[in-house]
Amino acid sequence: MSSISCPVAVFTQFSSNKKGQEQNKHKLHCLKFNGTKNSSPQKVDFTSSQYNHITVLSSVNPPENMKPQNRQKIPTKKQQVDPYRQGMIVEGVEYRQTVVVRSYEVDPNKTATIESILNLLQETALSHVWMTGLLSDGFGATHGMMKNNLIWVVLRMRVQVDHYPIWGEVMEIDTWVGASGRNAMRREWALRSKATGLVFARATSTWVMMNQKTRRLSKIPNEVRAEILPLFIDKQAIVEETAEKIQKLDDNALYVVEDLKPRRSDLDMNQHVNNVKYVTWMLEAIPDEFLENHQLSDIILEYRRECRISDVMQSLCEPQEDQNSLSSNRTLEGNRRLESSNRGRFTYTHLLKTKGNPKDEAILKGRTIWKEKL
Amino acid sequence: MSSISCPVAVFTQFSSNKKGQEQNKHKLHCLKFNGTKNSSPQKVDFTSSQYNHITVLSSVNPPENMKPQNRQKIPTKKQQVDPYRQGMIVEGVEYRQTVVVRSYEVDPNKTATIESILNLLQETALSHVWMTGLLSDGFGATHGMMKNNLIWVVLRMRVQVDHYPIWGEVMEIDTWVGASGRNAMRREWALRSKATGLVFARATSTWVMMNQKTRRLSKIPNEVRAEILPLFIDKQAIVEETAEKIQKLDDNALYVVEDLKPRRSDLDMNQHVNNVKYVTWMLEAIPDEFLENHQLSDIILEYRRECRISDVMQSLCEPQEDQNSLSSNRTLEGNRRLESSNRGRFTYTHLLKTKGNPKDEAILKGRTIWKEKL
Repeated sequence: MSSISCPVAVFTQFSSNKKGQEQNKHKLHCLKFNGTKNSSPQKVDFTSSQYNHITVLSSVNPPENMKPQNRQKIPTKKQQVDPYRQGMIVEGVEYRQTVVVRSYEVDPNKTATIESILNLLQETALSHVWMTGLLSDGFGATHGMMKNNLIWVVLRMRVQVDHYPIWGEVMEIDTWVGASGRNAMRREWALRSKATGLVFARATSTWVMMNQKTRRLSKIPNEVRAEILPLFIDKQAIVEETAEKIQKLDDNALYVVEDLKPRRSDLDMNQHVNNVKYVTWMLEAIPDEFLENHQLSDIILEYRRECRISDVMQSLCEPQEDQNSLSSNRTLEGNRRLESSNRGRFTYTHLLKTKGNPKDEAILKGRTIWKEKL
Repeated sequence: MSSISCPVAVFTQFSSNKKGQEQNKHKLHCLKFNGTKNSSPQKVDFTSSQYNHITVLSSVNPPENMKPQNRQKIPTKKQQVDPYRQGMIVEGVEYRQTVVVRSYEVDPNKTATIESILNLLQETALSHVWMTGLLSDGFGATHGMMKNNLIWVVLRMRVQVDHYPIWGEVMEIDTWVGASGRNAMRREWALRSKATGLVFARATSTWVMMNQKTRRLSKIPNEVRAEILPLFIDKQAIVEETAEKIQKLDDNALYVVEDLKPRRSDLDMNQHVNNVKYVTWMLEAIPDEFLENHQLSDIILEYRRECRISDVMQSLCEPQEDQNSLSSNRTLEGNRRLESSNRGRFTYTHLLKTKGNPKDEAILKGRTIWKEKL
């Protein structure tokens, strides 16, 4: 499916009700959807190319052991254990995978990067679907979704990191899903030290279905609901208070990085820029001197529309002054008003947007919270 | 160590003999080295920062279970099996690891990218050293190397890919080491399908030691030789004929991509641009329309000097016309001269160089061979 790697939250294609064309705002947990019937002109189908390779291989009649189905061996029935992925089903429907932090997943501090963590979240989510026996040929889509031309798209992701795992460390990643209103799904994760059980990070995300032909968001058809509902549990990795709206920055933002262009190597199996790449661009705007002494502890990503290979983007960010001070004199009188729990915490607001496109230009809005390195 | 991710082949710091200052050409398999004693001014030590995190953690007296040595658990004795890495020693000294191709390691064809393959080569090489009990705190360096301030640097890498593994496929990667002359080491790999044993790819590379303080290449001290010699076997993954010299391109190259700049996220645990990133830049210069119908089957990388974070690079490439034709009319009379084994094979010469630096500007020279997609 396009979903996991394709943060296409095409909000202008939402309709608020069956009358159709009225644009809707993004209201988390109370989304309203069109049905899947839609007579609008077919948009570019970014995902159709993902089967090129398979089709081409088939056309020259490859030997049996080179056919994708015999190489991937996607289960057709629910599995309890996957020895090669070191994955297993726990508590009935949750998925747990043992993962070693690899040498190329760490940064100069020898700790996993936030990008590596996000990649592992994607990987374990897909492995979970893999284990259920529901995975169709698409990228995370179930058989019922494929039949209805539906793919997953991510609207929002939040990751809180208390401790970054280090190179060579063995982690356990748990992931599970639950309902979010009637037509969205939450996907949650917890990352722990395998040795001590200490929780390193927690994450939550919200997903909806999109018709891959019309590019419109879709209700979850009953057929698909019947597939995924048995997986849903009521358990949250992060208990969130009412989400504060992320302010939209403009060109007066304090830090701006210009001319970010997707490269061919940024595209994934859906010919889309992978959502992890967006995070890299978003964080490019944080000043170096700040990064030297601070580490990311909380990131919220709100995906607004997909980034095209031809887009030239800007990454904007600004410290959130009402909450924190970025001055190094945090012990001065002026900062006494800070809650003690906020001491040493710094918030930035982020925007990734296309350049020279005055309308609907936001690709990603974000908020990051940082704490001082010990 | 800086080595595996730090392609610092600082050839101008080679000296041909004990007299010292005469610059040496790069002669593979017959390198001559200075001893490690060196009175030249100390150069910037790129690697010193890699321990910041650890040092800082220690200074605030972290709990025992948060100390890196208790989290990484690097073996102090030779191990036969590593259950978490799914690795084991085979044939006495070779290392074999079972690896599943992850969702974020594939390209729009759903097959592993060359970058992913290179990352896995690095990972399995490090896991091999990990298993030997020789690994010190550095990035692949042995205890003897650390004591002598030595790190590994890669001079050359060659990867031949017959079949690209696909998303979800289970692979076995074998890796081993051998001597290359008296002062260099070969590191070799073979990647196979776990299910069928079919060989997907083979790779070979040449490494030397560098003094991390003086940044000069070093002989292998006897102490270190004694550590690594028992690992050496005489077995080659790729049987190479006499290596053809890679031609150096100039600004008249057919394809040029300008303004390639390392981003912060390109730096790895040695504060260096990771060598895999160089390959991405190198391949950026291949035209899109060629990539649509061809896949990389052979890549040779010759690392010439490190890339600094401030460098602005150009990636140049040019088809090698004397061997192949890039015309789409390959059946025309003029191409009949091609050896049948070369039909459908295309060679490009590559150069990655800094811009506006007339002297010693080559960072990476490369050659790629491509075949038509089936």
